Amino acid sequence: MEKELIVKFQCTAAECDAQRELSLLSLASHIIETATAHADSLGIGNGAMPGSGWVLARLTIEMQRYPKALEDYSIITWVEGWNRHFSERCFEITDKEGNTMGYARSVWMVMDLEKHTNAGLEHLNIPYGLVSDRPCPIARQSRHRPLEGAEVTEYRFVYSDIDFYRHVNTLRYIQLLLNRFSMDYFDRNYLRRFEIAFAHECYYGETGRIEVCSRGDEYDMGITTDRAAALGAKMIFAPRS
Amino acid sequence: MEKELIVKFQCTAAECDAQRELSLLSLASHIIETATAHADSLGIGNGAMPGSGWVLARLTIEMQRYPKALEDYSIITWVEGWNRHFSERCFEITDKEGNTMGYARSVWMVMDLEKHTNAGLEHLNIPYGLVSDRPCPIARQSRHRPLEGAEVTEYRFVYSDIDFYRHVNTLRYIQLLLNRFSMDYFDRNYLRRFEIAFAHECYYGETGRIEVCSRGDEYDMGITTDRAAALGAKMIFAPRS
Repeated sequence: MEKELIVKFQCTAAECDAQRELSLLSLASHIIETATAHADSLGIGNGAMPGSGWVLARLTIEMQRYPKALEDYSIITWVEGWNRHFSERCFEITDKEGNTMGYARSVWMVMDLEKHTNAGLEHLNIPYGLVSDRPCPIARQSRHRPLEGAEVTEYRFVYSDIDFYRHVNTLRYIQLLLNRFSMDYFDRNYLRRFEIAFAHECYYGETGRIEVCSRGDEYDMGITTDRAAALGAKMIFAPRS
Repeated sequence: MEKELIVKFQCTAAECDAQRELSLLSLASHIIETATAHADSLGIGNGAMPGSGWVLARLTIEMQRYPKALEDYSIITWVEGWNRHFSERCFEITDKEGNTMGYARSVWMVMDLEKHTNAGLEHLNIPYGLVSDRPCPIARQSRHRPLEGAEVTEYRFVYSDIDFYRHVNTLRYIQLLLNRFSMDYFDRNYLRRFEIAFAHECYYGETGRIEVCSRGDEYDMGITTDRAAALGAKMIFAPRS
């Protein structure tokens, strides 16, 4: 049993945003992929539990800088802790020399794919001594409060937003949040910290209200539908040097 | 020199659409990736020509069926011919047993990335005997005519639509075209043939008009901006059996 998995990547041009750095979307995608690979290698992956599957409940990413086009980087993942309901998995993103570029924290639950309810972690055969004591020095995710006086944009979910499970793709939500900012803002600032907490799934044809409340370079965000609050999020930007 | 490159893939859940088959977007992405890998292996990739790069001018995909979730498949690519201006590259998509699932045709040009003009292929050191005589039995791309009486939807390009070159990502155009159809239509039909021909790039903040003219299950489509026609496209659907 390997307490940690390290996966090497090269940042391709196709994975970059207009600032020629690894986009948050590509990074989040590789973080999810790395988590999946580690769970699989530990024998607690989706393949090991037919009828249920790991679902991402929260993701926090804090970067000092993002990989540039063609730059080599690695993602290291480990389990920080787990209880009956949730597993906490952390990530360190390092450059070719092993210097820290950033960290990520994630919270996962096991969902009964038929009933769409939390199936809990107790039925899992979690290997003894799995938890690693590697530090993850970024703050835990803050509690997202209802947004008041938010600037609201509406978006109706279409075919390409919907995934294998027939709900809106995780990465698509992130795109919708990022798209509330202008190109000019991304040219002048980089996203230092990103938080997202999922509450309810959205479906094809539903209209999501994307809400943004700003306090300087810190933005509290959310997506809600007529049925429920789908997610809460936070973005903290910092000026590019 | 290998006249043909064959790349093996497994269709992951993340690459599927709501019908649990490889999405056209994922397939187009892997086709472009496979073309790039073959050009690189022949010493005529983007790395071999600083200041200019291969640009996709046309893509035609015709599928008998799409790979299903977790299914293994391969993409075989070869050069069918080339002249001073364009290279024609074909693809066959096969299942694990080597049965044909579909074919694709593509036309590429070399663009001077600074001047944004066709740099031509004459400066390239194209290996002698490169052209393969493997057949690609699907029809060449039809000529796209101006659309009359089209149904029009508008879309303004945002941050996440823009790529490394600061123009709209090829795959994003395909998404916008696909999103003109309902989930119900995709549940009942599959996209048998897809054609796209690029004319002018779109930029951040521009508004694209997505135009659709239908004749039964055949759709002539296009995207135009105030400046120019960005692309022409065609989709031919067939009922799912």
